[in-house]
Amino acid sequence: MPAALIQHPFMSQPALAQCNAQAMVDAMLAFELALAEVQEARGAVPEGASRTMRATLEAYAFDCDAIAAGIASGGNAAIPFVKQGRAALPEALKRYWHQGATSQDVVDSALMLLLGPRLASLDALLVRCRAAAIDLMAAHEGTVMVGRTLMQQALPITFGVKVAHWALGLEQARRRLAALAETGLPVQFGGAVGVHSGWDDLGLDFMDALAERLGLGRPVLPWHTDRQPIHALGTALDAVAGAAEKLALDVALLTQTELGEVAEPAAPGMGESSSMPHKRNPVRCALIRGAARQVHGHATVLLNAAAQPLERGLGEWHAEWAPLIDSALLLEGALEQAAVLLEGLEVHPEAMRRNLAATGGGIMAEPVSRLLAPVVGPDAAKRISAEAAETARRSGRGYAEVLNEHAEVQGRLDPAAVHRATDPALYLGSGRAQVQRAINWLTNF
Amino acid sequence: MPAALIQHPFMSQPALAQCNAQAMVDAMLAFELALAEVQEARGAVPEGASRTMRATLEAYAFDCDAIAAGIASGGNAAIPFVKQGRAALPEALKRYWHQGATSQDVVDSALMLLLGPRLASLDALLVRCRAAAIDLMAAHEGTVMVGRTLMQQALPITFGVKVAHWALGLEQARRRLAALAETGLPVQFGGAVGVHSGWDDLGLDFMDALAERLGLGRPVLPWHTDRQPIHALGTALDAVAGAAEKLALDVALLTQTELGEVAEPAAPGMGESSSMPHKRNPVRCALIRGAARQVHGHATVLLNAAAQPLERGLGEWHAEWAPLIDSALLLEGALEQAAVLLEGLEVHPEAMRRNLAATGGGIMAEPVSRLLAPVVGPDAAKRISAEAAETARRSGRGYAEVLNEHAEVQGRLDPAAVHRATDPALYLGSGRAQVQRAINWLTNF
Amino acid sequence: MPAALIQHPFMSQPALAQCNAQAMVDAMLAFELALAEVQEARGAVPEGASRTMRATLEAYAFDCDAIAAGIASGGNAAIPFVKQGRAALPEALKRYWHQGATSQDVVDSALMLLLGPRLASLDALLVRCRAAAIDLMAAHEGTVMVGRTLMQQALPITFGVKVAHWALGLEQARRRLAALAETGLPVQFGGAVGVHSGWDDLGLDFMDALAERLGLGRPVLPWHTDRQPIHALGTALDAVAGAAEKLALDVALLTQTELGEVAEPAAPGMGESSSMPHKRNPVRCALIRGAARQVHGHATVLLNAAAQPLERGLGEWHAEWAPLIDSALLLEGALEQAAVLLEGLEVHPEAMRRNLAATGGGIMAEPVSRLLAPVVGPDAAKRISAEAAETARRSGRGYAEVLNEHAEVQGRLDPAAVHRATDPALYLGSGRAQVQRAINWLTNF
Amino acid sequence: MPAALIQHPFMSQPALAQCNAQAMVDAMLAFELALAEVQEARGAVPEGASRTMRATLEAYAFDCDAIAAGIASGGNAAIPFVKQGRAALPEALKRYWHQGATSQDVVDSALMLLLGPRLASLDALLVRCRAAAIDLMAAHEGTVMVGRTLMQQALPITFGVKVAHWALGLEQARRRLAALAETGLPVQFGGAVGVHSGWDDLGLDFMDALAERLGLGRPVLPWHTDRQPIHALGTALDAVAGAAEKLALDVALLTQTELGEVAEPAAPGMGESSSMPHKRNPVRCALIRGAARQVHGHATVLLNAAAQPLERGLGEWHAEWAPLIDSALLLEGALEQAAVLLEGLEVHPEAMRRNLAATGGGIMAEPVSRLLAPVVGPDAAKRISAEAAETARRSGRGYAEVLNEHAEVQGRLDPAAVHRATDPALYLGSGRAQVQRAINWLTNF
Repeated sequence: MPAALIQHPFMSQPALAQCNAQAMVDAMLAFELALAEVQEARGAVPEGASRTMRATLEAYAFDCDAIAAGIASGGNAAIPFVKQGRAALPEALKRYWHQGATSQDVVDSALMLLLGPRLASLDALLVRCRAAAIDLMAAHEGTVMVGRTLMQQALPITFGVKVAHWALGLEQARRRLAALAETGLPVQFGGAVGVHSGWDDLGLDFMDALAERLGLGRPVLPWHTDRQPIHALGTALDAVAGAAEKLALDVALLTQTELGEVAEPAAPGMGESSSMPHKRNPVRCALIRGAARQVHGHATVLLNAAAQPLERGLGEWHAEWAPLIDSALLLEGALEQAAVLLEGLEVHPEAMRRNLAATGGGIMAEPVSRLLAPVVGPDAAKRISAEAAETARRSGRGYAEVLNEHAEVQGRLDPAAVHRATDPALYLGSGRAQVQRAINWLTNF
Repeated sequence: MPAALIQHPFMSQPALAQCNAQAMVDAMLAFELALAEVQEARGAVPEGASRTMRATLEAYAFDCDAIAAGIASGGNAAIPFVKQGRAALPEALKRYWHQGATSQDVVDSALMLLLGPRLASLDALLVRCRAAAIDLMAAHEGTVMVGRTLMQQALPITFGVKVAHWALGLEQARRRLAALAETGLPVQFGGAVGVHSGWDDLGLDFMDALAERLGLGRPVLPWHTDRQPIHALGTALDAVAGAAEKLALDVALLTQTELGEVAEPAAPGMGESSSMPHKRNPVRCALIRGAARQVHGHATVLLNAAAQPLERGLGEWHAEWAPLIDSALLLEGALEQAAVLLEGLEVHPEAMRRNLAATGGGIMAEPVSRLLAPVVGPDAAKRISAEAAETARRSGRGYAEVLNEHAEVQGRLDPAAVHRATDPALYLGSGRAQVQRAINWLTNF
Repeated sequence: MPAALIQHPFMSQPALAQCNAQAMVDAMLAFELALAEVQEARGAVPEGASRTMRATLEAYAFDCDAIAAGIASGGNAAIPFVKQGRAALPEALKRYWHQGATSQDVVDSALMLLLGPRLASLDALLVRCRAAAIDLMAAHEGTVMVGRTLMQQALPITFGVKVAHWALGLEQARRRLAALAETGLPVQFGGAVGVHSGWDDLGLDFMDALAERLGLGRPVLPWHTDRQPIHALGTALDAVAGAAEKLALDVALLTQTELGEVAEPAAPGMGESSSMPHKRNPVRCALIRGAARQVHGHATVLLNAAAQPLERGLGEWHAEWAPLIDSALLLEGALEQAAVLLEGLEVHPEAMRRNLAATGGGIMAEPVSRLLAPVVGPDAAKRISAEAAETARRSGRGYAEVLNEHAEVQGRLDPAAVHRATDPALYLGSGRAQVQRAINWLTNF
Repeated sequence: MPAALIQHPFMSQPALAQCNAQAMVDAMLAFELALAEVQEARGAVPEGASRTMRATLEAYAFDCDAIAAGIASGGNAAIPFVKQGRAALPEALKRYWHQGATSQDVVDSALMLLLGPRLASLDALLVRCRAAAIDLMAAHEGTVMVGRTLMQQALPITFGVKVAHWALGLEQARRRLAALAETGLPVQFGGAVGVHSGWDDLGLDFMDALAERLGLGRPVLPWHTDRQPIHALGTALDAVAGAAEKLALDVALLTQTELGEVAEPAAPGMGESSSMPHKRNPVRCALIRGAARQVHGHATVLLNAAAQPLERGLGEWHAEWAPLIDSALLLEGALEQAAVLLEGLEVHPEAMRRNLAATGGGIMAEPVSRLLAPVVGPDAAKRISAEAAETARRSGRGYAEVLNEHAEVQGRLDPAAVHRATDPALYLGSGRAQVQRAINWLTNF
């Protein structure tokens, strides 16, 4: 697969390196060994057997290619893995290997084991994003810029409050993911049909002990075809993707040549074009957005696979594996970019000021109208404020200056009041309070 | 739109009746009046003004059709609604109407007001499902049936434990939705660019007070383009849809003519075919599955619209409205069906027993092999158990009987032990314990 | 449902008016009457019976509400509709009503009958778009603007060539849809299990004749669970949505306050904000984008419902109805907006020129480098072209002027050559040829 | 990535082997060399240069890992690939390398080059499926089985006609894909902003010649942000996935233990369970369904990425790569399974007959009612036919026998006529004609 050139670039490279086929084999092995240990502790495996198993199999080089090739006949990696493992064990131990377990127990638990460190990593990246965002918010709570709705200039805001909104999105998503991590990604253990056939009440006991031993969450019951845990996880990952995508969308928009209000952190070679020397492309934004859209597609698979038939899915389960792991890896890649973006974002307050003036004051027409209305009436107020904005825009002169020279304004209003009403920096609403509230909330975890 | 004939049938009819265009207008009005009241309480509106507003506008018949028609020019319902409202007010109050608010404040808050009762209703339906499931679990914790994986007969389970797994899925989804309802669907209030322009710190104060007055949740900050609350809500609705869909899938499979293990509750005319008199179609399952799949589509829209540009979406926001409301209404319809299904499900233990015997005992080959292995060796054990199952299946005789007559078994094993090993009712693993644990968890809320 | 205020605004109003519940009933009736006529022509219905049926039922007022209410028990509109129709017929004709048909025959065919006029309407709108685009291309094949990649200024293009690319997208999508319309949306007729039970070879004959009589396409066989026709239709609608969405995205980006290169056609009240007098929002773009995203969600439902079990879907089929019809209505709404956009788009060549100069010539650094390289070497060429662009941008002077004054350039290059190399209007590549080729292709249908 | 164990098993192994990172590099190289050749033929590159380039670079070992690593800074594989290539060329040729091209030209064209052989392979697999299906249809046009709607037994069909419906779905999808392959997957060549900057009318000439030289399709214009070709391709792949998924769904349902009407082709180890010796899982069906669902998710990404901004996507384009290639590889894997399924499907006519009798004749109640109605009146006819079916089902006796003994029937109807009316094999409608028509259509290509 040309994945290395078309898919991996969106992913976290360290995560990719950690989360490979060998890691999957290791995770399946960890599950089986923990199972033997748990069973030994309850007398279901002879004393010492689990230790021999561990010694034997941790020293054994599983053949990943053979496992991969073996999937064709059973439909999942556990079957050929279990066979290899069994073959490697001394005769007397073979029957205690994979005892009471089914393929789905192995695969689901292994995937959860692989995903645990990914959630930790995602959380760490989101914490980095949060810290960087708080710094930006503090630094720019007074940096005035124009707010834009439907991509049109609307009224002034601050860059600090914009970052606060980004940070809130990211942190809400982080908390949603963290809540799942806290409960623990659930172990899977139910045996062939999910009722621990042949083990009676010991079955649930094994399941609970396995969870603890593997550091996974303890589900109420086996969840072979109750995919709520997968749905919760997949959609929580997607929520983070959405929050990162929002950041990337805004940065990309603000980076447009004509706006130039922010720029991705400069780095050698970063953002270069293959044909145009002058360009500096918002490549990090492109990578985030490319990854996030793929995560949405993966999440869609999970939504449509949540209902699985009877005691084991027939394709629905199988369809979950790659979307789940790929989502995590893509998202981790996206958050690495997001963290760098937030930590090193170039902010151009002068461009923000320049753009604030682009309408000649039109964006301040509302407060100006309010000021004029009591003096000239609401209709004239609207007309005058608009006329003056147009004059200011064309002539490049200040809005207040033009207003103060306007025949219907002159002598009827205090020029200083007009200056105040046209000053975006004095019309920032709750911007500063929002930044403070956001910081309180962000740091209260 | 032919919605009445192709979309509404999947929806809850009472919910549809409550949640119509007039209800949307009422919700927008509730928002604006609460805003005036909150502002009056803080001196931003003259004393008594909000009371006059309420009296005037609650008596005023908003023209829904005109509002609908007016959407074309502004792109949302708030703009024409606000115009109508303003026109209906006495001159002196016009300026206090919609004061400090923007369209998105009105529409988002109104949608949350519409959805609040829907969440309550969904919760009530899920509680009904839970109660009915607990009854079924208790009644059938000893009802033996075959468990099926990849839709093949595997090993015995009980019908009680199957219901437990359904119930767990539904309850996990219910708790996810309930957690959102508990925090409260958030009020929206940020003004034109989300910073309460012109109102300084009073803005957040208005927002908080509005939340309380409207019984909505208090967001940290306005969330015009931080759509995490919508993502959380949309995916939580989808999780419930998935859990209901799983129930419907299983019921539909178990209802197949050849299985006949359960049947939808009988009702006059229910499940009739337009051409075949003998048929009783699992129509409730079809309606649930039809609704759930549409919910997944709507959720996909929300995933892909989570990243919205700058201070207001340009289509992304607009794309959320119908998917959000339709999801809730479809889901409520699906849960009405699910509740009826669970409350009145016909369970056929005799068919379950018949199907358990379909393989002649093949499904019990595993415990039989275990019993034989110490006596004849593992390979012969496997061979004999399979041969006998085949003989039993063909001759219609009992598996134990055939085994006990087998040349290699006769005289080497206690016939009673063979009987025990072939009895599905003695091979139910943790089935009973799972039901108990599930009931504990389900009733611990 | 608050659809009138949150969903209908995205739809075509005339289409909505035509395509209501009554229209669905009419379409089901058209199917049944045509069936009787076709059967009468082949002797399967007594002579004159179909005429009496038509006379009776065209005069009969079907009760839409009762049909809607009746859906709950059978799961589709055909069952209660057929009952009402049968009740209204004289006793002797009852048995010839719905003879040999099944619900799915009625519903699928009725949906195709409803969609036929929608495809025609969509085609007409796309033809309007095409004509308007050709006019814009012709008018602006020489209108120079900057091309933007990854939303950064890159190199010059013309507005004409940009429109050509829009037009090509729309026309490719139109041809895809037109190819389906040409073959005809297929009639459905297979009876209870799709094999015309009881009618032997006459069955296919009925099916073919029905197709012709109803002006629908003739499928090879009934397609109750072969949903390729629905997949082809749903994805073709989505393709058009994507092409319209691309147009809306570009217009929205070019309309940004700081770019101002185009504007939506002005119309009274259009694009107004509920709070900011100066704003003119690209509302048509928002409506198109909002509609297109919903269409994508609907298409996702269809993709996931394409595989339907055995001889009739169990929810998969039911899930198709609303997404299919809603897609068409949303798309028709979007194309109405697209046509108005293209027909009345305000184009601001002076803003395009202003923006071309925003980098001081940086976007022309590539051709300038090429010119300088043979004289000063490639490295110096790059350095000088970049330095001069920066000087030009800061000072607001012309790029050529600054270059010609540069110490390393002066006297070494013909100033006129430098002027030529910095002139975007002389660096338009195949822009004009592309417009011509596009017009040829667009008008060759 | 653990892709080898969780994603690759669904894919075609030979396709995976062919379509790796090296293949992507080779395809990018093929594009660049063809470009040089085309330009040399038109005098834009010195004579002999393209030959030297080819000789140099075909002998050069591109460093895939370095290319992969280099993607981070430019966002796509073309940029580091082009750098490596340039570095490997003699100084004099460097400037003719990648001349007039942009990254997207390289990547899009390379992807199309990779996909060409995949489409051919998919077509060959679909042709195999078609041939196998025709054989099955011919062999089983008289094999009676029960048709099932909403998964309930309905009326008789033949296995031949069921296969005909599968085959039609697959062939419709094949023709849709073949139509794209015939036009040719389009070459991409437009230069930095899609207008062949610096090359005037020669640009389109290069593009056309490139298409021919590479065996790709000739687009009307460059399609950097006109993604209709990608949408058409992605949705055509998804259509095939849907058709294969339908086959797998039906086979899985018919393979259920209680039905047992078909079975996947037996093969050593195929379908084994990790815990239950008696099981033979429909693993091929699971793999097909698992793959198809992932394809739907990938297609959803493409639908939502069809609208790309201005002259180059900012993430939207990047998001297409993996979904597109993965879709093709997953689909090829699914079709390999589908071909094996159809070629080796075990068909059990005796089980079909057994299941036909499961309702005791209830499924024949309709024709029996028709026979009785003229004699006993329609209401009694319905009652008697149902009563007798119930008696037959309970007693295990034949429906005709029971009917002929019924008090209200005896002596009033010819027993032979009753036998005929209850014989499913005489109530197959157009089954045989459908098979013939399908074969005609399938072989008329």
